[in-house]
Formats: sequence, structure tokens, C-alpha cells
Amino acid sequence: MVWSGDKCRVILADEPGFDGWCRVIWSDHVRELSDLAGPDRDHFMAVVAAVERTLIALLQPVKMNIAALGTAAPHLHFHVIPRFETDANFPAPVWTERRHTTSRLDRIALAERLRSAFADAVI
Amino acid sequence: MVWSGDKCRVILADEPGFDGWCRVIWSDHVRELSDLAGPDRDHFMAVVAAVERTLIALLQPVKMNIAALGTAAPHLHFHVIPRFETDANFPAPVWTERRHTTSRLDRIALAERLRSAFADAVI
Repeated sequence: MVWSGDKCRVILADEPGFDGWCRVIWSDHVRELSDLAGPDRDHFMAVVAAVERTLIALLQPVKMNIAALGTAAPHLHFHVIPRFETDANFPAPVWTERRHTTSRLDRIALAERLRSAFADAVI
Repeated sequence: MVWSGDKCRVILADEPGFDGWCRVIWSDHVRELSDLAGPDRDHFMAVVAAVERTLIALLQPVKMNIAALGTAAPHLHFHVIPRFETDANFPAPVWTERRHTTSRLDRIALAERLRSAFADAVI
């Protein structure tokens, strides 16, 4: 866990070949984004945007990807994924076959940097 | 085009094997969701949620998927995708290989139903 608030939390995913892939997870059980009332949706997306902004500042990715799928695990969460030319399958969607599973950054050290950055971020 | 507002528009995508796959496209050129100021982000996500809610009411999907990738086309847009057990690769992410490319619904007729539904939706 790299950030935790009253209504949602942020984890650094363990996705070999992708550095900085985060998940923003809503705490209460809801299936879909549209199940949230407007103010909750605004808050949730503000957290998603803050995570995106923080990852951009820290890692300078080529592009960000955002997705809420949950077809297998129907509990509201957003993937926030920095994309790099060196990642596992750039520029294809991350869910296609991975050409490699080599991460360039140490995940434990990156989690620590994210914790510090999120502590300073306005969420 | 099935809906158009001051700041964004909604199209029904042509994605064989997937019924009701919509795209919500921000009109001004921005790359990332986090490039939008808070009120614009809230509005954009309210439209995305309204599209999701409308597709659920109209088509009763098993699950909804939402994604803003844009790795190849870096202009802010969200995919809003109803998932069905009969779609091209359920329950895998839509970007994996399609097992079939057969749509069950007529796209022109569906676009007309969406136009009517969005005209009545509170966005």
C-alpha cells in the first residue's frame, strides 16, 4: 500500500515488465464507477488523477493508461499504468502478450518513493 | 455520433464482436485525464458514468469496462464497453485476441436507441 484515504487506497502492483503500475481500489463494495454517487465519483477520480500526475512527475512515462475492467474481479478499482518504450509490450495494450517480464526499477524502493510523493500530493 | 456536448462527444464504435462499445472523446486536445482541471475532469467522468449507466439499462451487460489508453493515439478519450458472455473474448480484456467477430445487434439500430436514451439522460 502506498497511499490510504477514508474511501480508497493505492497499491503498487506486482506486474513484471511494468514499472510503476498502480491500482486505486475503492473500499466499499461497488461493481461499477456509475454505482458511485457524484461526489464519491469526483473524489475517486481526483485520486486517480493525482496518482497519474505523481507517476508522470516521478517516472516521465511516454503515456499513461487508465482502466477499470474487473470482469473477473467485479470490485471497483482503476489501473493507473505508466507506459515506456521499454515496457513489456509497448505500444500495445498491457493485456496483450508480454514480450519480456523485466522490470527496470526496484519495486520496494519505488514503493517508498511513491509513499513519500503521495504524502506530499494534494488528494 | 450518439451524443454531443460543449466539451465532449460520444460515438458508438465499430468493433465487430462487441455490442455497444462507446467512446467518449474530449474535444480540446489534451493527452491525459490529469491534464484536465478539476471541474472539467468531473464533467468528463460524469459523461462517462452516464454512458455506462445508459448502456447497462439498455443492454444488461454482465460487467462494464472503462479505459483511457491512447498509447498510439494520445488524445484523451475513454472506452466504455459493455461485456457479455457471448462477446469476442469474455472474460479476457477486450484487447486480447478475438475468438469471433460476430455482433448480435444491428449497429445502426443500436446507435438510434442510444441517441434517444442519451437525449433523455441527465448529463
